[in-house]
Amino acid sequence: MPIVQFAPFSSLVQPTFWHQLTSLKIDVLRLSDEAVSITGSYSVGRSITDRETGNEIALGCNLSVGAESFDKNAPVPAGAFPAHGHLKNYNTIEEFKAADKTALFNEEAEKMWEAIVSKRDSASLNNFMVITFADLKKYKYYYWFAFPAFAAKPAWEIDEPGWKPAAGELSPESLTSIHAQLKATPMPFFLVRSGVEIASVDAYSTFFANVPPAEQTIAFIDPSANASNPGWPLRNLLAYLRALYPETTSRLRILCWRDSEVPNAPTGWKSRVGVVHAGPSEATTGARPSAVGWEKNPQAKLAPRMADLAPMMDPTRLADQAVDLNLKLMRWRILPSLDLEKISSTKCLLLGAGTLGCYVARTLMGWGVRDITLVDSGKVSFSNPVRQPLFEFEDCLDGGKPKAECAAARMKKIFPGINAVGHTLSIPMPGHPVPPASIAQTKSDVKKLEELIDAHDAVFLLMDSRESRWLPTVICAAKGKIVLNAALGFDTFLVMRHGVRASSVKEGATQLGCYYCNDIVAPADSLTDRTLDEMCTVTRPGIASLASSTAVELLASVLQHPDGMHAAAPPANSDPAALTNAGVLGLVPHQLRGFLAQFRNLHIVGAAYHRCTGCSEIVLKAYETEGFDMILQALNDDKYLQKLTGLDQLYAEGEKALEEVDWDVDDGEGDDF
Amino acid sequence: MPIVQFAPFSSLVQPTFWHQLTSLKIDVLRLSDEAVSITGSYSVGRSITDRETGNEIALGCNLSVGAESFDKNAPVPAGAFPAHGHLKNYNTIEEFKAADKTALFNEEAEKMWEAIVSKRDSASLNNFMVITFADLKKYKYYYWFAFPAFAAKPAWEIDEPGWKPAAGELSPESLTSIHAQLKATPMPFFLVRSGVEIASVDAYSTFFANVPPAEQTIAFIDPSANASNPGWPLRNLLAYLRALYPETTSRLRILCWRDSEVPNAPTGWKSRVGVVHAGPSEATTGARPSAVGWEKNPQAKLAPRMADLAPMMDPTRLADQAVDLNLKLMRWRILPSLDLEKISSTKCLLLGAGTLGCYVARTLMGWGVRDITLVDSGKVSFSNPVRQPLFEFEDCLDGGKPKAECAAARMKKIFPGINAVGHTLSIPMPGHPVPPASIAQTKSDVKKLEELIDAHDAVFLLMDSRESRWLPTVICAAKGKIVLNAALGFDTFLVMRHGVRASSVKEGATQLGCYYCNDIVAPADSLTDRTLDEMCTVTRPGIASLASSTAVELLASVLQHPDGMHAAAPPANSDPAALTNAGVLGLVPHQLRGFLAQFRNLHIVGAAYHRCTGCSEIVLKAYETEGFDMILQALNDDKYLQKLTGLDQLYAEGEKALEEVDWDVDDGEGDDF
Repeated sequence: MPIVQFAPFSSLVQPTFWHQLTSLKIDVLRLSDEAVSITGSYSVGRSITDRETGNEIALGCNLSVGAESFDKNAPVPAGAFPAHGHLKNYNTIEEFKAADKTALFNEEAEKMWEAIVSKRDSASLNNFMVITFADLKKYKYYYWFAFPAFAAKPAWEIDEPGWKPAAGELSPESLTSIHAQLKATPMPFFLVRSGVEIASVDAYSTFFANVPPAEQTIAFIDPSANASNPGWPLRNLLAYLRALYPETTSRLRILCWRDSEVPNAPTGWKSRVGVVHAGPSEATTGARPSAVGWEKNPQAKLAPRMADLAPMMDPTRLADQAVDLNLKLMRWRILPSLDLEKISSTKCLLLGAGTLGCYVARTLMGWGVRDITLVDSGKVSFSNPVRQPLFEFEDCLDGGKPKAECAAARMKKIFPGINAVGHTLSIPMPGHPVPPASIAQTKSDVKKLEELIDAHDAVFLLMDSRESRWLPTVICAAKGKIVLNAALGFDTFLVMRHGVRASSVKEGATQLGCYYCNDIVAPADSLTDRTLDEMCTVTRPGIASLASSTAVELLASVLQHPDGMHAAAPPANSDPAALTNAGVLGLVPHQLRGFLAQFRNLHIVGAAYHRCTGCSEIVLKAYETEGFDMILQALNDDKYLQKLTGLDQLYAEGEKALEEVDWDVDDGEGDDF
Repeated sequence: MPIVQFAPFSSLVQPTFWHQLTSLKIDVLRLSDEAVSITGSYSVGRSITDRETGNEIALGCNLSVGAESFDKNAPVPAGAFPAHGHLKNYNTIEEFKAADKTALFNEEAEKMWEAIVSKRDSASLNNFMVITFADLKKYKYYYWFAFPAFAAKPAWEIDEPGWKPAAGELSPESLTSIHAQLKATPMPFFLVRSGVEIASVDAYSTFFANVPPAEQTIAFIDPSANASNPGWPLRNLLAYLRALYPETTSRLRILCWRDSEVPNAPTGWKSRVGVVHAGPSEATTGARPSAVGWEKNPQAKLAPRMADLAPMMDPTRLADQAVDLNLKLMRWRILPSLDLEKISSTKCLLLGAGTLGCYVARTLMGWGVRDITLVDSGKVSFSNPVRQPLFEFEDCLDGGKPKAECAAARMKKIFPGINAVGHTLSIPMPGHPVPPASIAQTKSDVKKLEELIDAHDAVFLLMDSRESRWLPTVICAAKGKIVLNAALGFDTFLVMRHGVRASSVKEGATQLGCYYCNDIVAPADSLTDRTLDEMCTVTRPGIASLASSTAVELLASVLQHPDGMHAAAPPANSDPAALTNAGVLGLVPHQLRGFLAQFRNLHIVGAAYHRCTGCSEIVLKAYETEGFDMILQALNDDKYLQKLTGLDQLYAEGEKALEEVDWDVDDGEGDDF
């Protein structure tokens, strides 16, 4: 008599499954290769009719997994039944290949057998496992499913004439009743008494008590649609019954339930019935039978499969995910407490789209910052592209493109997911009086600048003159924005963060200074009368990227510090290695001066100055109460700010007083200092 | 009787004049605004015939300057006469505008008068001056010529019937003779005796002695072609004669010589003759007469002119000059001893076109380096563009462009003048055995790498694994190339220059180490079995540009050091500010370790190790004698290098010995360390 042949489960992996695994790996698992629980599902087997031959073609005996497989609370789709599994994701392809698959499989089979014999748990009969390696750089997923099934010794045989349509054995009423009961109470494995009543297979001993064997039917939801091969679940169902009820299960009538709907015609029922029998179990001790079940690949070999998702992904989304991945990887091993979103969600305004602006924009993109706005009034000139890494030669032609807009456009070419905007705008400067005819334009420029600062969280001062930093310094201090300031000398740089305004300083904290706190005169016109070497940025070519990267990393460090922009600076002359007042990313210095001739940085702490023309309360309050009128005075009257702050009195105290001031700060190495 | 009207000089400035001024400004003058001598030239006036009316149209009374004007030894073109001038170039447009033009003019006029009356020097009669401001960023040249001419009081008047054709006064033979004599001995101002003999005007007192006034003619090369207005030179000629010979010069016959060729017909002579007379000079004291002569602009106003050369320049050349200018400006004020050519002519080979490679390439371009070759075996992936500043999103599509070639192509888009080449090439690595089928390919790869290293001066090691640096380290040490090595950790970097090989170390000098000198095991496979975070470069985004800029600036500093690659490193723990062993650009450290968490760099000096697997003589000699065979052994046999250097014996001395070794160097922060 023929041995019962079972149609093995075949895994059906939705692409969403890999997307979800990717997220899980990056955000949760990281370097862990602990097994995680997942849930697959299966339904009754489906077949389709070949339109040419009229033959029925059975579709695969599928066990399907998707994004929902990782969600313990996700409902199983209507008509489907859950299968519980474990996923073990390896960190390297080598580990995946070298994994001891026999040991893994046996471990899983052991657990299932334990559930069957000790816990009498039929819910484990369809348990499965999958091992994976996710190559997230290439979007290739290697995987291998195992559906452990226990071998019967001796094997089950089927009575002649084999599997028959259920409609020949059970009345249409009986089948319709079973269908209705399953719809009301879905059960993967169930018992049928007298062709009508059904119950869970767990009720075997009571439900069949006193029922003659001819009235007993063992049934299961059959994912197979193959006429002569019942699906894989039957195999473990038989092992389960044989192990628990060895006395009464040597011959069993089996109903392979394959009907999701009541058919239109009585001959339309697809479920099948057969009687199977087995000799006395060889292992009566309850020892676990051997198990099989590694899935074969499409070439029918026992080998893993690979899903290549790259071709089906939208390139823009691929780029988006790749950038994200690179950042999230930081958290895996190195900095689990890094709050990437805090950085990437910081809206950054870059005043100046020259050497500093281009490098700052690039480094911000590297940090995943998505909102970057650039402001510049210039056009791309021929000397720019080799120094300013967002421009190309073609941008210089025909008089040159506007720098800010051009830089923003280039950023989109680099990363389509970026929200980069450029504005051509002149920043009004003290010491550069506004002719009456230009007042309306200046007013509109100031308004625009105020709006831009309002709309951003962090403002970078990256211009090429000292006095152009004044207005944004005032507005940012008033509006409580984070200010990063970078300026270049020939082989030196200054990178600093402005302190918060006096009225916002936390109790007991020291107010850090702004760019102007060391000044004893107000910013004035330094642009007129500049020689060629002063008009151009005469610097060692490496200094700009050093300053820019330092400025962006200083912002990142500030954002990751628990006190944010209120973070105290490490004290002057403290050992940097001591990491005093450090945040997640390390120190948050106030001012850094880089000296390329020495390849070193100097840490400086500068307290705020109550007469400062940039950030003192007297200036901020004048701005807040008088608005544009105050700004206009500062632009037109080069004595206004000095009078306002009282610097003029200080100045009037004569040269002797001045000589005592520490002039060390500006050593004439560059106009920008 | 009509007053004599003179046709003023008009300046004719060839574009080559501005090009030459640009070079002079950048390379010689720099910030100096001292007047420099230049030489202009003029010829006899030309006229053209209007084809419609048949009228003669006089062309301008030109004084021409060109590139040759700056060259004291340049010959005056045939038929032309020199005019000596001074050029004063201002550093800013404001200075140019604010210049005291009256004072300048009077100073020049004073010198001319002095030459006339004291030195009796007729060569100064056509002296001129020009003030300029060259806006080299925009290729706009502002200039204003002055051709000082002394006013006669009372003014010269011309006898009726005014200026007449010379052919009516002098015989054809006479004119032909004068032409021949001038051809033999060109003279701007000359005397004609009896219609035939000529002599320089300087010989006035002797040449005309005993010659009746009717036989005396005063002549000059006349740049005017205007029938009734002799050219500007006559004005100073008359002033000269009147000042030196007041007794005999109240009435003079003037020949305006305008013939460069002997005409075909006797009526073809263009020179003109007239008799001028003046009353007794009002100033008999020899005091300088007043002078006029600032040139009017095309709108006939006394104002400067502007030459805008930008539109006529080839954009590629504009870019070339702009880049050059930015660099040369460094020498003006800051570093006159900087040898830019030494840097820009250094051929650089970049092994690795990733984050480091792209930033290094950009900074090298900033230094004007023209020959940059990149080597990489990878393709541009979606995560690259935001971190690797030579790639864009489109480079990632369709599987990605080859990185090295793509980077080179992008560099040409940035600066068409660059000679950038990319090679897709895998660098063989120890610990990665070569299968027999791949030996031929590996041999060819090694040969290619050797050829590339041969063809370059400096080699940057910018790969993302430790062992890939071994082969280039060996080849570069053997070939005596400068090696710059940069490697990244999460928030740290290493930048170092390799020392020269032991056999090349100068007497008394310490040999500096290479990347492998601290190792006690040979480089081996660190790539297999890497988890995702190890495969990707998990770094703070700013660290790559910091390391790259530092590496390039270290190269620049080494190249500018008088000892070049033999320069001693500043001693460990020395104060960087002391600038010990510094070159033109400052310190030339051996190793720099950057710590972004502290925003500081550590200076390290590491001596070479005689058992080093990368640079020891035993390794280099094995390579030099055995060539590829030795390399193949190192690749295939992970014990080979340890045996060769004796590291295996050291290793065999047991764990105790190992524990004593300072493990501080590799702190596991990154794979690359």
